[in-house]
Amino acid sequence: MNTIPGGVCAALGFTANGVHCGIRPNRRRRDLALIASSVPARAAAVYTTNRVKGAPLTVTRAHLADGRAQAVICNSGNANTCNWNGAAIAEDTAALVGDALGIAARDVIVASTGVIGEPLELAPIAAGIPALVAGLSMDGSAEAAEAIMTTDTVRKEIAVEFTLDGRTCRLGGIAKGSGMIHPNLATMLVFLTTDAAISAEMLQAALSTDVQATFNMVSIDGDTSTNDMVAILANGMAGNAEITAPGADFDIFMRALNTVTVQLCRSIAADGEGATKLLECVVTGARDARAARTVAKSVVCSSLLKAAMFGADANWGRVLCAIGYSGADVDPAKIDVTFRSEAGAVAVCQNGAGIPFSEEAAKAVLSEPEIEILVGLNDGDAASTAWGCDLTYDYVKINGDYRT
Amino acid sequence: MNTIPGGVCAALGFTANGVHCGIRPNRRRRDLALIASSVPARAAAVYTTNRVKGAPLTVTRAHLADGRAQAVICNSGNANTCNWNGAAIAEDTAALVGDALGIAARDVIVASTGVIGEPLELAPIAAGIPALVAGLSMDGSAEAAEAIMTTDTVRKEIAVEFTLDGRTCRLGGIAKGSGMIHPNLATMLVFLTTDAAISAEMLQAALSTDVQATFNMVSIDGDTSTNDMVAILANGMAGNAEITAPGADFDIFMRALNTVTVQLCRSIAADGEGATKLLECVVTGARDARAARTVAKSVVCSSLLKAAMFGADANWGRVLCAIGYSGADVDPAKIDVTFRSEAGAVAVCQNGAGIPFSEEAAKAVLSEPEIEILVGLNDGDAASTAWGCDLTYDYVKINGDYRT
Repeated sequence: MNTIPGGVCAALGFTANGVHCGIRPNRRRRDLALIASSVPARAAAVYTTNRVKGAPLTVTRAHLADGRAQAVICNSGNANTCNWNGAAIAEDTAALVGDALGIAARDVIVASTGVIGEPLELAPIAAGIPALVAGLSMDGSAEAAEAIMTTDTVRKEIAVEFTLDGRTCRLGGIAKGSGMIHPNLATMLVFLTTDAAISAEMLQAALSTDVQATFNMVSIDGDTSTNDMVAILANGMAGNAEITAPGADFDIFMRALNTVTVQLCRSIAADGEGATKLLECVVTGARDARAARTVAKSVVCSSLLKAAMFGADANWGRVLCAIGYSGADVDPAKIDVTFRSEAGAVAVCQNGAGIPFSEEAAKAVLSEPEIEILVGLNDGDAASTAWGCDLTYDYVKINGDYRT
Repeated sequence: MNTIPGGVCAALGFTANGVHCGIRPNRRRRDLALIASSVPARAAAVYTTNRVKGAPLTVTRAHLADGRAQAVICNSGNANTCNWNGAAIAEDTAALVGDALGIAARDVIVASTGVIGEPLELAPIAAGIPALVAGLSMDGSAEAAEAIMTTDTVRKEIAVEFTLDGRTCRLGGIAKGSGMIHPNLATMLVFLTTDAAISAEMLQAALSTDVQATFNMVSIDGDTSTNDMVAILANGMAGNAEITAPGADFDIFMRALNTVTVQLCRSIAADGEGATKLLECVVTGARDARAARTVAKSVVCSSLLKAAMFGADANWGRVLCAIGYSGADVDPAKIDVTFRSEAGAVAVCQNGAGIPFSEEAAKAVLSEPEIEILVGLNDGDAASTAWGCDLTYDYVKINGDYRT
């Protein structure tokens, strides 16, 4: 499994582009992204569990009922959510893209991200599509990745190469993250493409399984967005025998998918709004997988711990506190906690009680940009990892005045 | 129902005091509080639901098994949690207080608040108790209220006067709040006293019922503390016929209790760590009480909304978002949202969609120190109120370096 360049266009047959069409006032900000496959692809997606759903999600869910798609259109700057005409705008957008690409509107996935509750006009989208389509390119992943960014500070893309049935396959993707991110099914916008051949059912199974351990384990701020989805297109152009059932090939595909999604999770968490540090909570020794996940998520979601990590303060009591209120079935008297980073590892808690440690060493460990919080529950064999970030002044600044 | 001075000593027979004994390094900070009744009292309490519990809670729960207490000892500066000898320290503290007051150790309620996981020494407590007891006074509520403060900026005390069975009764209390506050049973330290006569069973029933609509509806940061409890002592010195069953007298008692607890909730939320604004989310028209509470809590817990309120940004989409992910059974298309304060009221969302409003008027409304977020679900008759505060730079600052 090698990492390769190309992002969402690394797989054969995929092109992408991103332009400024006018949804955002700032002309230097791209706000419309398109990803297209040269042939129809199998498609699968997972969606936010928020009851208040962006109109594009409803439209996309209907379009994907047949497990097939050929393009993804996504705007930033406006969520097209809580608008009376949201579904119509999303349908019209799909129709415009379908016309421009010569494909059916129902083969277009539609997504939006940005402010909730402000009407989305079709005009800038309609005006932007010709240039967007004309500029579709195998080198267009970066432009598309930029066009879906909101408060993200860096674009997020990655791809890997792997072998299936003797054929070289590729799987890559782009993501936007930053704010309103909390695990409840999909919790951000992620678009994945692969040239591996896999049935729509197995593609959906792969995605639904993978997100439980990846995108569902990322939290920036505890707010589950209204608009998030993770969608994947598989166009089969690598020429492998189609995966239609579990087995060795499916396992290889799952590993490729997981390599890409874990990297995107880390990128999203590290670039959380205002974040200066990536937090990775690794829980081991849990009674079962559910307890492991519940504990890991609770730790990376704790505002108090996140603020302490910003201050490089080894306040491990907040880790214990977050484990305690997580609702998971744990024995507090068995819990071990260690902070680890490039600067080393410092054990701070054993059997649920504090142990002597060097504050100086802990400060050094917690001053690194990537921090692991290792939690040993010593109560079973299940493990899990969750990703988050520190809570900083800039989070407050960014969100104190997001709309204006 | 009149508000009266005296706080936790307003009721007949209660005295209190607070001193600096040396748990905190800062000599100007009181760190040990004592509340005493001149006669044994009925007692009830509710405790944090965090699985990681402060040792004092375990000791107090055992002491209150007989529904009786005569004194409360509480230190700040150290939570006495996650320490190997925590229970012994808490028991020894109760014994010292019992000896000094000439009462049984099991009639002493023990509480601690502060840093988790640092050993609590008995020596400063033992050294401080003589002066603490000697200074017990009917005017001591303020000193006790100060001694239980952690990052609180103001002390919190209130009392009311009411009539039961022709007798004048009083009920008052003190609270500490500020951080690590999230609704899950009791979520802060609150000590209440009354001279009304009420059985231990009815006292527990009153407290357990009341906290559902009061202290369980306050969130500062989503972190449920390890140490929180709400305890109440009723010494019967007002001379009314003891309340032993539901009825008119019990209802009057409940109203008095609720008047005190709501005011303490508002004080705790307004003084949340770093807070500049009190947020009050009033949900009406819910299908049932549970949905109403779930929605109200979700709104005041949203980091994104809290940051927007700090910035006086009428970003109502975040209210809809928080309602949507709350898990409550609501119909997004029926939701109305209005922001209201001393500066007026501005409706921003009707039937789940945005409506035109004056940004200037909204800014004025949201620039006040107390903001109401009115959510109409238009789907039933249940209502609920939750209290919270804005998320500010100072929250991050306070919690980025709490221990040092």
